[in-house]
Amino acid sequence: MKPIDNSTFSILSPVKSKLKIINDPVYGFIKIPSELVYDLIAHPVFQRLRRIKQLGLTHYVYPGAMHTRFQHAIGAAHLMDLAIQDIRLKGMEITEEESEAALIAILLHDIGHGPFSHALEESIIEKLSHEDLSDIIMHMLNKEYDGKLTLAIKIFNNKYKKNFLHQLVSSQLDMDRMDYLRRDSFYTGVTEGIIGSDRIIKMLNVVDDQLVVEAKGIYSIEKFLIARRLMYWQVYFHKTVIAAEILMVKLLQRAKKLVLEGEKLFSTHALQYFLENSVSKNDLITNTSEIIGQFISLDDDDIMVSAKSWSLHHDRILSMLAGNLINRVLPKIKIQKGPFYEKSLKQIREQVRKELNWPEKDIDYLVFTDTILNYAYSEENDTIKILHNTGELEDISRASDIFNVDVLFKSEKKYFLCYPKNCNIMY
Amino acid sequence: MKPIDNSTFSILSPVKSKLKIINDPVYGFIKIPSELVYDLIAHPVFQRLRRIKQLGLTHYVYPGAMHTRFQHAIGAAHLMDLAIQDIRLKGMEITEEESEAALIAILLHDIGHGPFSHALEESIIEKLSHEDLSDIIMHMLNKEYDGKLTLAIKIFNNKYKKNFLHQLVSSQLDMDRMDYLRRDSFYTGVTEGIIGSDRIIKMLNVVDDQLVVEAKGIYSIEKFLIARRLMYWQVYFHKTVIAAEILMVKLLQRAKKLVLEGEKLFSTHALQYFLENSVSKNDLITNTSEIIGQFISLDDDDIMVSAKSWSLHHDRILSMLAGNLINRVLPKIKIQKGPFYEKSLKQIREQVRKELNWPEKDIDYLVFTDTILNYAYSEENDTIKILHNTGELEDISRASDIFNVDVLFKSEKKYFLCYPKNCNIMY
Amino acid sequence: MKPIDNSTFSILSPVKSKLKIINDPVYGFIKIPSELVYDLIAHPVFQRLRRIKQLGLTHYVYPGAMHTRFQHAIGAAHLMDLAIQDIRLKGMEITEEESEAALIAILLHDIGHGPFSHALEESIIEKLSHEDLSDIIMHMLNKEYDGKLTLAIKIFNNKYKKNFLHQLVSSQLDMDRMDYLRRDSFYTGVTEGIIGSDRIIKMLNVVDDQLVVEAKGIYSIEKFLIARRLMYWQVYFHKTVIAAEILMVKLLQRAKKLVLEGEKLFSTHALQYFLENSVSKNDLITNTSEIIGQFISLDDDDIMVSAKSWSLHHDRILSMLAGNLINRVLPKIKIQKGPFYEKSLKQIREQVRKELNWPEKDIDYLVFTDTILNYAYSEENDTIKILHNTGELEDISRASDIFNVDVLFKSEKKYFLCYPKNCNIMY
Amino acid sequence: MKPIDNSTFSILSPVKSKLKIINDPVYGFIKIPSELVYDLIAHPVFQRLRRIKQLGLTHYVYPGAMHTRFQHAIGAAHLMDLAIQDIRLKGMEITEEESEAALIAILLHDIGHGPFSHALEESIIEKLSHEDLSDIIMHMLNKEYDGKLTLAIKIFNNKYKKNFLHQLVSSQLDMDRMDYLRRDSFYTGVTEGIIGSDRIIKMLNVVDDQLVVEAKGIYSIEKFLIARRLMYWQVYFHKTVIAAEILMVKLLQRAKKLVLEGEKLFSTHALQYFLENSVSKNDLITNTSEIIGQFISLDDDDIMVSAKSWSLHHDRILSMLAGNLINRVLPKIKIQKGPFYEKSLKQIREQVRKELNWPEKDIDYLVFTDTILNYAYSEENDTIKILHNTGELEDISRASDIFNVDVLFKSEKKYFLCYPKNCNIMY
Repeated sequence: MKPIDNSTFSILSPVKSKLKIINDPVYGFIKIPSELVYDLIAHPVFQRLRRIKQLGLTHYVYPGAMHTRFQHAIGAAHLMDLAIQDIRLKGMEITEEESEAALIAILLHDIGHGPFSHALEESIIEKLSHEDLSDIIMHMLNKEYDGKLTLAIKIFNNKYKKNFLHQLVSSQLDMDRMDYLRRDSFYTGVTEGIIGSDRIIKMLNVVDDQLVVEAKGIYSIEKFLIARRLMYWQVYFHKTVIAAEILMVKLLQRAKKLVLEGEKLFSTHALQYFLENSVSKNDLITNTSEIIGQFISLDDDDIMVSAKSWSLHHDRILSMLAGNLINRVLPKIKIQKGPFYEKSLKQIREQVRKELNWPEKDIDYLVFTDTILNYAYSEENDTIKILHNTGELEDISRASDIFNVDVLFKSEKKYFLCYPKNCNIMY
Repeated sequence: MKPIDNSTFSILSPVKSKLKIINDPVYGFIKIPSELVYDLIAHPVFQRLRRIKQLGLTHYVYPGAMHTRFQHAIGAAHLMDLAIQDIRLKGMEITEEESEAALIAILLHDIGHGPFSHALEESIIEKLSHEDLSDIIMHMLNKEYDGKLTLAIKIFNNKYKKNFLHQLVSSQLDMDRMDYLRRDSFYTGVTEGIIGSDRIIKMLNVVDDQLVVEAKGIYSIEKFLIARRLMYWQVYFHKTVIAAEILMVKLLQRAKKLVLEGEKLFSTHALQYFLENSVSKNDLITNTSEIIGQFISLDDDDIMVSAKSWSLHHDRILSMLAGNLINRVLPKIKIQKGPFYEKSLKQIREQVRKELNWPEKDIDYLVFTDTILNYAYSEENDTIKILHNTGELEDISRASDIFNVDVLFKSEKKYFLCYPKNCNIMY
Repeated sequence: MKPIDNSTFSILSPVKSKLKIINDPVYGFIKIPSELVYDLIAHPVFQRLRRIKQLGLTHYVYPGAMHTRFQHAIGAAHLMDLAIQDIRLKGMEITEEESEAALIAILLHDIGHGPFSHALEESIIEKLSHEDLSDIIMHMLNKEYDGKLTLAIKIFNNKYKKNFLHQLVSSQLDMDRMDYLRRDSFYTGVTEGIIGSDRIIKMLNVVDDQLVVEAKGIYSIEKFLIARRLMYWQVYFHKTVIAAEILMVKLLQRAKKLVLEGEKLFSTHALQYFLENSVSKNDLITNTSEIIGQFISLDDDDIMVSAKSWSLHHDRILSMLAGNLINRVLPKIKIQKGPFYEKSLKQIREQVRKELNWPEKDIDYLVFTDTILNYAYSEENDTIKILHNTGELEDISRASDIFNVDVLFKSEKKYFLCYPKNCNIMY
Repeated sequence: MKPIDNSTFSILSPVKSKLKIINDPVYGFIKIPSELVYDLIAHPVFQRLRRIKQLGLTHYVYPGAMHTRFQHAIGAAHLMDLAIQDIRLKGMEITEEESEAALIAILLHDIGHGPFSHALEESIIEKLSHEDLSDIIMHMLNKEYDGKLTLAIKIFNNKYKKNFLHQLVSSQLDMDRMDYLRRDSFYTGVTEGIIGSDRIIKMLNVVDDQLVVEAKGIYSIEKFLIARRLMYWQVYFHKTVIAAEILMVKLLQRAKKLVLEGEKLFSTHALQYFLENSVSKNDLITNTSEIIGQFISLDDDDIMVSAKSWSLHHDRILSMLAGNLINRVLPKIKIQKGPFYEKSLKQIREQVRKELNWPEKDIDYLVFTDTILNYAYSEENDTIKILHNTGELEDISRASDIFNVDVLFKSEKKYFLCYPKNCNIMY
């Protein structure tokens, strides 16, 4: 991990203090349960998450949403701590070692996230998935900590015999989403998204090495699913949020194009690296340390300061997109269930072209259509099991008669169309 | 205001939308009461406050403290709205025009703040006070909005006949601190700092053009004063927060020194400008537009990305300070009421010098002592008046028998000493 | 209204004070908007609601549920105030007179409720519905206030031309349930039941004299429906709550039987009246003032002190039921979707009879089966209309694809079986 | 304990269930840590606390204040649980047995409280202190539970060697006031009274067998003291609350006088007992079981239903006082620091006498003056010790420079004057 000057670091590395409590606006006091966990939090690779907002540009719609992946990771680890304590009380044995490992697994589950993940993955780092990056960084940390993270990595990758520990890290009811749903609703002020995470955690149990919910928790689960849905459409897929992200995608695509054409752009070192190099998955294997080194020194600030500088660049497209991003001048966006008519698109393009006196070949930076997929559901083929008093397990889709389960668990595709705000377009 | 490309801006300027509600985690829904207020919020100069954290590096101690001056300014304006409504109900006439002006005055009261104000004012922009800058920027905006801000500026500068409107903007009980105390305690999670802003606002009244508190609100005021004190020592002057800020001061001092010596450092344009130029108060008059232009394009991100880059610089002092700042490796700090013994300081300097093999002439970057002044009190020579049922006014210091008023309203000076964390120093 | 000594009352009647604010733990400050509203709240008939718990015996399961119908009525009136303000902002004209009337209608909507409504309606006042009683009491108050309640009564009875005002008082989205769902979840501590009443109110609009919800509020409505369902099964129909209510029904049935047989029981005057007289709907017409007089002096306390006394009565059935009620010794209860087998019932009866040495003819006081009907849904044949941006209205059942609407809006019947807790019964 | 029919009770006594969690609106989930604790909560003597409101008639000012001594006792026990866990983490040994005993001691600390304690102690049970009653009842329970409460009683009476356990039950920082301050502010809606009980508990430590607060908790303690003061004057000594209590005292005094004169009044058995008998401290020793039996069957409901009945009595004084109490027609009250002039009193008495045509000899039921003493402070001669990092202990009065300690810890006496609301008195 190159950008961190290790000699410096070793001189003034985080002291092994006794500090064990973190103040969290969501949960109150959070105890750091072990020295290893403390050290991981103090590590530069984790500290960097302080500079990556959990919800990217969502604060353009909900100004409170400034919270970071740093806070989320620690919050999720806290819930893991509570969940393990409660599951133990129900007679399930979980050793101290397993407990710490599960906690570390959730603490590091997002360690591979870069800034504005979705936007960057659609523009300049298309080939690097944050899952791959997390995996690599965890292994690097494991090396640095003499193998103390081996069990955590096993749990993270579902290679450990106690499968339910992995489910606490990653499943329909994992501590990741328990924290992010609650935290995101807290910071956005969308109070309706608040889930009863403490009650759900109290209702968790383990049967046949599987995480299940006790029957009396069924209404809490219903409410959890509906709150999640509300958060998706009211926050994560809020149309103005999408418009902002798309604007960033277009900006970065333009910047990369210009750089590859030899144009000189101001940018920070790490961003420069990814603008100049189209890193492939294979490069990640052959050139790990360089790529990871650059990647972990990239954060929200790099993108924003570069965009701020680009807003003064002579390339009209770059400067306009950048200025709009910085000053929150977002494209107008329409969302609908089916595709837009090519004819209408053509008309809009033509009108924008005329109104702004814009070159035809570059009109796609201003008028464009694409789809969003409510992938959060589609990728989950596991489900939620309800444990009846009789001992029987039943799928939530059958245990609860209230939902059209098809709808709830099916991915949903929507089409959107963006065009400049101030063009006089009737749609 | 140069850095904003106006031609671009005019093409896609913020639409005059009907959007009137902002979700705020602290107060719930906030209504934007007029189009002018909406336009000011949408203005790039105000949007820039999204990139300036209200509490600078405080999130190094309280990770939740990521909220921005943008949120604070809107929150304070919201409280102004409530306060004016309540004061009107008590029979005090406030016109629509005055109401909007007071609201704008509080909305813009911090518009001249740059990133990490305290740290920068002690390192690279020593001669520019945020009060002066606010004043200049307000006048620039007033010009842009054809004089519509004239009354707001009068109120802000206490030049308007209704003095109590100014007191709502700036006094012991202004909406500024009503919001920041509540907001800061919310985001830090220091719930004990929460003040009953709604109750205090309900107790406000105006007598002889003076903002007063009705007698039954006296206990709320006592609690407000004590909560404020708690926030000062538990948050604003938390010793680790001070250590972090001092680290940033030292870093920027070093960077400026190197730049002035001709050393080449990576930095963003705006930061470069202030590293290269020691702008004086006079420059601000003779060269307003250039300086303001640079100033308003400077935000938290500029400092942090530059520091990140400097952590790899060959100057050992710069790189160490920068790496420590970025990775939250903070100096150890001692705070006490009297000065430190020169003899002890000498010993510590000597020990650090040896342990780190550090050049003697540069030891002051690592070991230093200075004072902090609880200036928040000292600059306030106005006080809080209690309105008794009899109609009499009484100073809170007499109305409340509980406090040692001398203590509460006197500024307090403390001495601190910083040295590297891992040096084996017994103090 | 006999039991109130009017001569006394006129001497020291509630002063026409300026007091206009009530502290409410749920909403903070509630303003009393007019003198008439203040006077109604101060009236003995309304003050009596302080002695009637909103949720009867629910505090036997959720100890916090001690809140009263007094608090609920004022809370609902507060929401009415907010809703009317918001609807006005959307351009709908509502006069001051209409506004006050709608507020009074909701304030008094439950004025005919007695103590432990469900239990008493199934035992000693079977023929008196609280709707009829509310209507009569409102008319009595209207007379006392010289007809000033006429419009309120019209709105309450849906006889006023502006139908949507009635819908604010009584419909799927009325302020009654907005308040009670939020308040009940607050006081029970079942935080998952908390609904976003402020957001829903902000989304209300009126189209063709009909209360509708704007399209962007659809997820809030979904969450409202699911939170309501959760509250039903987790609070209102919690099996232990049902067991407690059933115990009270059995106790009052026994008491009435004994009184009618000439047995002498201690009881308060008002309770005595209803134990001795089986008041019919017709009596209510012919003997209004006596019956209402007795009815409004009956509250929770009358039932509880009488039961306390009965726990020492020589009738073994009465004393046991009463002692169990007072000391929270609740019957064991089984709930299921279909009826219980007669054979099992017989066995249980037989076993209880033997274990407790209980006379066969009285076994039905200890072992019994009955049904509960989720009537809250069944009585509602109105529905929720969503207002799309296009101006079209759509039923929530079609606008939201998530629910099995049949389930959500259909009444649901369940069977339960009770038997003494400590009998050694395997079921 | 006579009124509980033990034969009945033994048949259907509370089952030894596994139920271990109580939903509390203030703290969320509360775990019942042992079977003995569960049994004590289920005991009729404890269940009776459900019928005694924590704050008596305070709900006449703050309608939300309906919470009971049942809730408070369980809440305080919950805080004891947390405090013990935290103190253990700091290395202090506390055995399981001691932990359970301390928890039981706080659970039962108010077990001797009757309804409207202050009012009854000034009218009909002047000789019985709730401390004496608590002690007697605890010993009766100890007998019933075969001595299992012996250690709890020792701790309660400060006879156990580990003195700090007693301090957790009763001292300036005991769990009693930690709970009641927080709970009372929650239910009254006086949010400013909320104390940071979780933070204070985290700051507790034990030095030399003494409960102390770590230095960094000093601002929390300051805020605790000031919040307590606020609660005293804004809630506990709110003048309308005092007026209501005084009204009840006058009513009960009148009732007792009439009963002793041979007048027949409706009342419940237990109330009758105390109206007819002036029980002395000596009687409590010679006739324990009868008196305690009556006492524990007396609760809020007895007073209220009797008053309701008395409002129709032919004695004009009784009926007026009773009607006013029931219907919340409270006397007007003036509070001041010094005594009232006898001359003014005379005038007021004379005027009331004339206006109401009231017999001179009974004027003291309507016009009276008395004092209140902020005794909550005066009885506490223990203080709060701050533990500095150096290990030194310092009294809060010296450690905190902010307060006039004399004021804060000195009892405060105020004079009040009551007269009928509607008499046309200018004062």
